[in-house]
Amino acid sequence: MRKTPRFHLNNYLSRVGSQVNAALDRFIPDETVEPPTIHKAMRYSLLAGGKRIRPVLCLAACDAVGGKTANAMPLACAVECIHTYSLIHDDLPCMDDDDLRRGKPTNHKVFGEGIAVLAGDALLTQAFELVALAKPPRRHDIATMVRELAFAAGSLRLIAGQVQDLENENRRASLDEVRTTHMNKTAALITASIRLGAMAGNATAPQLGRLTKYGQDLGLAFQIIDDVLDATSTKEAMGKSVRADQKHQKSTYASALGVDKSRALAARLIADAHKQLVIFGDRATPLRVIADFFLTRKH
Amino acid sequence: MRKTPRFHLNNYLSRVGSQVNAALDRFIPDETVEPPTIHKAMRYSLLAGGKRIRPVLCLAACDAVGGKTANAMPLACAVECIHTYSLIHDDLPCMDDDDLRRGKPTNHKVFGEGIAVLAGDALLTQAFELVALAKPPRRHDIATMVRELAFAAGSLRLIAGQVQDLENENRRASLDEVRTTHMNKTAALITASIRLGAMAGNATAPQLGRLTKYGQDLGLAFQIIDDVLDATSTKEAMGKSVRADQKHQKSTYASALGVDKSRALAARLIADAHKQLVIFGDRATPLRVIADFFLTRKH
Repeated sequence: MRKTPRFHLNNYLSRVGSQVNAALDRFIPDETVEPPTIHKAMRYSLLAGGKRIRPVLCLAACDAVGGKTANAMPLACAVECIHTYSLIHDDLPCMDDDDLRRGKPTNHKVFGEGIAVLAGDALLTQAFELVALAKPPRRHDIATMVRELAFAAGSLRLIAGQVQDLENENRRASLDEVRTTHMNKTAALITASIRLGAMAGNATAPQLGRLTKYGQDLGLAFQIIDDVLDATSTKEAMGKSVRADQKHQKSTYASALGVDKSRALAARLIADAHKQLVIFGDRATPLRVIADFFLTRKH
Repeated sequence: MRKTPRFHLNNYLSRVGSQVNAALDRFIPDETVEPPTIHKAMRYSLLAGGKRIRPVLCLAACDAVGGKTANAMPLACAVECIHTYSLIHDDLPCMDDDDLRRGKPTNHKVFGEGIAVLAGDALLTQAFELVALAKPPRRHDIATMVRELAFAAGSLRLIAGQVQDLENENRRASLDEVRTTHMNKTAALITASIRLGAMAGNATAPQLGRLTKYGQDLGLAFQIIDDVLDATSTKEAMGKSVRADQKHQKSTYASALGVDKSRALAARLIADAHKQLVIFGDRATPLRVIADFFLTRKH
């Protein structure tokens, strides 16, 4: 008889999150390494206790294709470095000008703008070093994985999204433009996190295809819910400034489609994401539960 | 009878520089690619006509070990992307606050600070994509080359140098501290440029050892001459602001050791660099002539 033990998301997130934090702590130089300031600034934002959604998805995808967690760990850390760098730069006065992130003062508030720019640069650079430290799986090589991350983080995706975000301030963007921005700004890195984890787990092409579609649906749903929460939640619940979109007159799903329709759209995307997971059976339980959690999260 | 044709540095620099410019133009998306702003900003600084010293050294090192230029070209472009990104971020108001670079207004002066930060980020990301596009030589793999570049550009070298530069403002740094800053800020990326070119040319370990030492001596000499030129040259000759070190009260070789002793030290370093090239015979002629040029350059 097949056993399907009940899956406790909170336990899973806290267990895997701790593994990721321990690995990040191991990989990133600490304040005893010269120059202390930069390593202090990097670690301040990196180890500030985010939800670790991208690394968790990376490891869960590796698991879904039957890979070893240890093989995906450098990649999980790499995507978290990319995410954190993008937050540090995004919070700068010349970008979104935010004072609060992950419940703490933003990097430039603590270390000054010059060091914050450099800490972001250093985390971005570190990410690629981490990819290059991964054990090459049989079906995929390190060069492919470096290109995967560079593409997702580069001027055609993540950075494109940041630019479009800046350019959508103070103007009414169409729903189509908002969708493109979100796919670039959020869904691309979430999808890459999942794909890299799957590659590290030696995924076949069909497996990779399913997980790519899962990641795209999940990523867009995640950002839609983010828009909704920015419009409806509190600073205390979020650990960062809310109504930031309104303040910058940003077009979001909440403003372009309304809160209720946005929630309904996110729910449809999550339902689609689930369909991609059928071929993985029980191994995809974490990916399923995470998808549902995305829809119901309050922060 | 062996023919040693006379070597014309200007012809060589202009020929190889054009090849590099053409390759950069091919590799970096242009303004027809969404979002136009970021690609315009990236290309503005990248194709602004710098001296292309790092890519030329990369290609010359590949040549010195008997490799094919085409195999080193993605790496030559990668190091130029890294160099340009570091200039864009270094020129920001929160860093050195410079208005002029390569004879033109700095990136943030033209595109604004937000886009300048993102253009730097995008070039840094692009650099790693380029490394991953290189044809893996027999003796070295792409993962090693990615780690090489990430190390040189990361928080232990290039970025460490930028941090130390910021921290040396308005205080009297020792000659030893200035040396460390220069090795990090300048010599590390120059050395990596040479090593990556040599790796792409399938260098042996002894060849790589010699070229590493050559690069370190050359890189330090380059920055010493830069300090001297900042203290003695004109804005017109340099194509960037001069006396910037004085303005920021930066400790430099010129201030810590004096102009004459600094020049003499640079000359000794270049003489040492030459010794490393003996084993390469005529193939290292460009590396020899470039070393001499470093010492006598006026901008």
